[in-house]
Amino acid sequence: MNDTNATDVSALVVGVLGGTGEQGRGLAYRLALAGQQVVIGSRDAARAAQAAAEIGHGVRGLDNAACALASDVVIVAVPWDGHSATLTALREQLAGKIVVDCVNPLGFDKQGAYALEVAEGSAAQQAAVLLPDSTVTAAFHHVSAVLLLDPEVSSLDTDILVLGEDRDATDLVQALVARIEGLRGVFAGRLRNAHQVEALTANLISVNRRYKAHAGIRITDI
Amino acid sequence: MNDTNATDVSALVVGVLGGTGEQGRGLAYRLALAGQQVVIGSRDAARAAQAAAEIGHGVRGLDNAACALASDVVIVAVPWDGHSATLTALREQLAGKIVVDCVNPLGFDKQGAYALEVAEGSAAQQAAVLLPDSTVTAAFHHVSAVLLLDPEVSSLDTDILVLGEDRDATDLVQALVARIEGLRGVFAGRLRNAHQVEALTANLISVNRRYKAHAGIRITDI
Repeated sequence: MNDTNATDVSALVVGVLGGTGEQGRGLAYRLALAGQQVVIGSRDAARAAQAAAEIGHGVRGLDNAACALASDVVIVAVPWDGHSATLTALREQLAGKIVVDCVNPLGFDKQGAYALEVAEGSAAQQAAVLLPDSTVTAAFHHVSAVLLLDPEVSSLDTDILVLGEDRDATDLVQALVARIEGLRGVFAGRLRNAHQVEALTANLISVNRRYKAHAGIRITDI
Repeated sequence: MNDTNATDVSALVVGVLGGTGEQGRGLAYRLALAGQQVVIGSRDAARAAQAAAEIGHGVRGLDNAACALASDVVIVAVPWDGHSATLTALREQLAGKIVVDCVNPLGFDKQGAYALEVAEGSAAQQAAVLLPDSTVTAAFHHVSAVLLLDPEVSSLDTDILVLGEDRDATDLVQALVARIEGLRGVFAGRLRNAHQVEALTANLISVNRRYKAHAGIRITDI
């Protein structure tokens, strides 16, 4: 596998929108643990500050707009039903930045999880439409929030599929992924192929149910 | 992981529709190598017989209808553009059998592969609609035909995601998968979640381009 980890991301400030949710807190915790400067965002600055204090490791909490402004790279970890409204409101603050969408548009019923249809094709493509002045990538769809948040888990055992149109941006996101112990970023195509990556989370939920696991994926032969 | 390999499939005859294509020949070769009785089907019985002779290991070749009739479990490995017509014609011959759909509806352009829209949701769901008297499952989407066909490759390094509504059928398919050296069958949900599994092949094609690989996937934590 090519050494995309040569990109130095250690000085970048990483924002996490929806940083008080499980996935957001988990990613913030792991990135901060790796020495990254992390800012979590929430609609409510006080909630963000409280969640940041609970995570520790120097994580700061701000409202979403201030979080976006303060960050070089911004991970979008908001719930799907707030995705469009949140990004629409932050178009200015996210201009010129690398955005990493990790949102999985899923529905749930008694048979488990299933993929929702998205007019733009995927959450990542919706982000690209709503944020024309940002460089949108997609990653972190499949990593278990439970494992991310568990301090007993010293190393995650998962590859992170990284998608995007811009090679510099996907290289940077792959390098950011590699900061987290046990994770490897793998380039996995353009945003037009993001839908199935997001939707695959429904299959991993089925795997988790059947095998009582926190499943992740590894790509072989690279 | 549960021991679904307890299901004894060693005496079953496995048919492979589209058995003269790369994926079909590769699966037929590996299953025959594992001691399974294998029959490949083609529209043209003479072509099927010739391909079977080339594969060796006792593989037989018949026309698609005779292949379906002769088999206990039938893998559908036809090109996507022949999927609907082939299955429509074989409804009677496939009645009462377990069908394993491994077809990936993909389009290709200069930017690579992308998922095609399927009216029924996925190739597997289309098979379920067209074959109401069969038990339809889906599997073998991601395993590289190049590796399957390479006699120098003694063991594949890939999990096979197995989908379906019927637990006995998915258990049986998982046991069949486990017959092939290096493969492990993992239950990964119902057919309504087959689309993204089929479409993920487009991402693996992007991985293969970027890393000069024959990528597969492994599920972690099971």
